[in-house]
Amino acid sequence: MKEPLVMGESALERDSRLRQVDDGVLEGEVSLGWCIGDAANGGYALSLGLRALAAVLPLPDPLSSTAHYVRPLAHGPVRIEVETMRIGRTLARGVARMLQDGDECVRVIAVFGTLPQVPAEPLYAEPCDILLAPIADCTPLVLNTPGGLTAHVRARFDTRYDPGSVGWARGTPTGRPVLSAWVRAEDGSEPDRFLLPVVADALPCTAFDLAVEQRVLTVELTVHQRAVPAPGWLACSYRSRLVADGFMEEDGEFWDSTGRLVGMSRQLAILPRQNP
Amino acid sequence: MKEPLVMGESALERDSRLRQVDDGVLEGEVSLGWCIGDAANGGYALSLGLRALAAVLPLPDPLSSTAHYVRPLAHGPVRIEVETMRIGRTLARGVARMLQDGDECVRVIAVFGTLPQVPAEPLYAEPCDILLAPIADCTPLVLNTPGGLTAHVRARFDTRYDPGSVGWARGTPTGRPVLSAWVRAEDGSEPDRFLLPVVADALPCTAFDLAVEQRVLTVELTVHQRAVPAPGWLACSYRSRLVADGFMEEDGEFWDSTGRLVGMSRQLAILPRQNP
Repeated sequence: MKEPLVMGESALERDSRLRQVDDGVLEGEVSLGWCIGDAANGGYALSLGLRALAAVLPLPDPLSSTAHYVRPLAHGPVRIEVETMRIGRTLARGVARMLQDGDECVRVIAVFGTLPQVPAEPLYAEPCDILLAPIADCTPLVLNTPGGLTAHVRARFDTRYDPGSVGWARGTPTGRPVLSAWVRAEDGSEPDRFLLPVVADALPCTAFDLAVEQRVLTVELTVHQRAVPAPGWLACSYRSRLVADGFMEEDGEFWDSTGRLVGMSRQLAILPRQNP
Repeated sequence: MKEPLVMGESALERDSRLRQVDDGVLEGEVSLGWCIGDAANGGYALSLGLRALAAVLPLPDPLSSTAHYVRPLAHGPVRIEVETMRIGRTLARGVARMLQDGDECVRVIAVFGTLPQVPAEPLYAEPCDILLAPIADCTPLVLNTPGGLTAHVRARFDTRYDPGSVGWARGTPTGRPVLSAWVRAEDGSEPDRFLLPVVADALPCTAFDLAVEQRVLTVELTVHQRAVPAPGWLACSYRSRLVADGFMEEDGEFWDSTGRLVGMSRQLAILPRQNP
């Protein structure tokens, strides 16, 4: 049963509500709506862990956050234990352990700070060079994952795929582990520091365009956030350099509607059937 | 006083010796030889934490490792407390807390596995496209850091800089936060899973070529290792996309002498004087 939306609340906020039950201990619910099959999407799990950290740490924005996925985090109740590390004026660090039935499923370590609302002139900024066609030339799709699991999380986004991406979804894998798309929340809410980690992991794996037809499991995901995204579409690019020996990395870049690089992600993932 | 080298031992091995003093607790010495000023280079600190994890975990190779730098890790004694997380057949995870005088200086979280000695034909591998001149056209330099701190760690490497890199060291910053170089250990030892994390952080910061004349401090460093490097030189490339609002990222790529991508790194670093 979906909980009702409170006025002005986004679907992600509704599905990330946590209540403090003890000093540094929070409880909540992993929502099926952000799962792939029965297990939380890795980006949503990270986002939930960051919510718990944000409730405890004195600075608002996760600058760098890393999640290690130890066990599947299932749809249902979750307990999050937050440990604060050093708290400074500019940086505050903490660790969140996400538990189900006493077992740790995900561990998040993050450093929080304050992202500029109005960024200063950068000392250096590479221009956006990702290959992404104008929105009107991109295709809206809600894609499942090869193997038949329902990717509930994909329905949370309005995703417009570049014509050169997700060939596998049209039966002709491109042979290149590259994906680009325009992304925004399906409920019309604007991107923020908790949505971006979800976007980092919610799109189909780049390896599907290498004709990999199995679920690819995230082992570790790190997300850097560099600015508060402006309202509007995110231009997203995902790319892998090396898919070998049962492992792959996937690098994401996230540009806001003003053309500013607001985040970068990298994950290490495992292709289970390729492993001995 | 430097400890003597044991036959066949590399300088890094000598300067990373740890003794187990309790269940999951190791002690050792942070060597001045791998410091910048009085504080351990971030890559060396990570490498030392990985040594402690390797002593406890049942799998040999750090596939993905992340260090959070909480306080400077000074030259001198260090205590490392290892927590094992889930141990599986393919992956084993753990956390190392590196303490001095009871204060945590660095926390490392890593997932270990087994890197292939003889990699299989990759499902996908991008060819090496880094801009790096042949070794004979590159310049051997041992560079300090703007601001006058002695970068002891740089003397541990034979580093041949691409002519288009480290313009700042010749008084003419290139204006591009890009650096490429051939790197090998100064003692002639071959690259391995403990040297690579050091290489990821030991070269001068890319921002020095933006005329930044201060020390840049690593906040968080993540290193992926994908194959055991072949003996010989590492071709290394470092690059930043965004230097803004007092923070920068630096991405490294490490290619072995057979032209294989063996590792990738990304760090978030802070430019202290740019921060309000």
